[in-house]
Amino acid sequence: MLLSRIVPYLTPALPSFFFRTASTMSSSIFTPERPASYVAALGAPALHLFTANTPNGQKTNIMLEELRLAYPDKKEIGYDFVRVNLSTNEQKTPEFLKINPNGRIPALIDNNVNPPTGHRVFESASILLWLVENYDTEFKLSFKDPLLRSDALSWIFFTHGGVGPMFGQAGHFLHLPEKIPYAIKRYTDEMRRLLSVFEDHLGTERTYLVDNRFSVADINAITWVKGASRAGIDLAKEFPAVNGWIERSFARDGVQKGVNLLAGPAHAL
Amino acid sequence: MLLSRIVPYLTPALPSFFFRTASTMSSSIFTPERPASYVAALGAPALHLFTANTPNGQKTNIMLEELRLAYPDKKEIGYDFVRVNLSTNEQKTPEFLKINPNGRIPALIDNNVNPPTGHRVFESASILLWLVENYDTEFKLSFKDPLLRSDALSWIFFTHGGVGPMFGQAGHFLHLPEKIPYAIKRYTDEMRRLLSVFEDHLGTERTYLVDNRFSVADINAITWVKGASRAGIDLAKEFPAVNGWIERSFARDGVQKGVNLLAGPAHAL
Repeated sequence: MLLSRIVPYLTPALPSFFFRTASTMSSSIFTPERPASYVAALGAPALHLFTANTPNGQKTNIMLEELRLAYPDKKEIGYDFVRVNLSTNEQKTPEFLKINPNGRIPALIDNNVNPPTGHRVFESASILLWLVENYDTEFKLSFKDPLLRSDALSWIFFTHGGVGPMFGQAGHFLHLPEKIPYAIKRYTDEMRRLLSVFEDHLGTERTYLVDNRFSVADINAITWVKGASRAGIDLAKEFPAVNGWIERSFARDGVQKGVNLLAGPAHAL
Repeated sequence: MLLSRIVPYLTPALPSFFFRTASTMSSSIFTPERPASYVAALGAPALHLFTANTPNGQKTNIMLEELRLAYPDKKEIGYDFVRVNLSTNEQKTPEFLKINPNGRIPALIDNNVNPPTGHRVFESASILLWLVENYDTEFKLSFKDPLLRSDALSWIFFTHGGVGPMFGQAGHFLHLPEKIPYAIKRYTDEMRRLLSVFEDHLGTERTYLVDNRFSVADINAITWVKGASRAGIDLAKEFPAVNGWIERSFARDGVQKGVNLLAGPAHAL
């Protein structure tokens, strides 16, 4: 039985609220999976990601796969993940609200620290920063220089407060059966305005958002930006610099792995 | 003449784009002011804030006033500020876009670092983090412990990605002459949902968002939350824990000073 097989790995590394109760483990709503990047020799993973196949979910998987590639021997970066079923509102269950009080994916439990419960992190950008600040010890995806680090933070907050929420509103009104022209125009206009901020920043000289190298600032943005096509925005035609940035980013192994992981079939633990 | 008086302070501390051109200084769109907390004995300020009397603008002034109170002798925290005129779209001018490519307030130029241009920071939460990470050296408004620091970041991103944008959308549709009931309900419902996340978190045991002490996480949220009344939400009745949190926060000297500064008359330089 699947869950009895995984118990040795999950106890006591996972906090008790990972399961409904110890006595009804088999009815847990959460089914952990192990990504292809899991390396048995490094031992049971201490990072437990709760995610789903959405732009915010994808970025956390991308970060973990990029870190795995950057630090293949670092045991602490081993992770498993749970596909939270958004269609049945698993993210609003009491169990999940203990991990993320906002009832949204993604969320992370890090059992490398703070035994025995570990540390919980919520909000996609907060998870990305936790991961680079703790595990990107050679600054391969982040910045040691305080000014570059601050630049990355400014772009991360721009994305988190502007791009994510506004792209999300556009998606909502575009898919709403009741068409509200004012709202559709408001949010697709805002999508284009936000994309133009990236376009002007990248211009012809920049390959990535900060310091011309792929980093946490890009990982935080690309899954949202790529989705602009779903709102009828042709990046190649309207925002060529943004389009080049997205193509460069999505050609990376770690980005591909993170995206494919969530789009593909379940990975038995 | 006002601007000629301030030139000695602003040159070369302020980058050249602070003024339209050197030869038309007197027609600069920006008029710096000095807050009441300015202490002449500490010298000319190196921090230059671009702000306005909005929830995002208020929080940066609050942070600076709180820092001034916490570190009265720290010269580096001295600041002046510019009230950016949102009604004439000063935030969309080429000069301002060099400071914040997103064309929004607030923005900060820090001339304590990176001479001669200084370092520019945009997005309200990015500014708050820059200020505490560089100037809150005794962690009076932030956290040394990595887990508490991470908790603060999770709440900061929750606020920046949820509370700010969604409260903003509610405000937009409530004030729109063309009433769109679906959108008004969508965003006022979301305001209440977000407030309930704070309410459940604070409950009866927590006085502030993180570690029961006033911090950057609170400063990032309180000006938005207080504005809920403008959407017809009675915090005292519907969200008593949130209401207590807001009352405690707004009773603080630094918060009062920051809010009053922007609500009040101009402060000549």
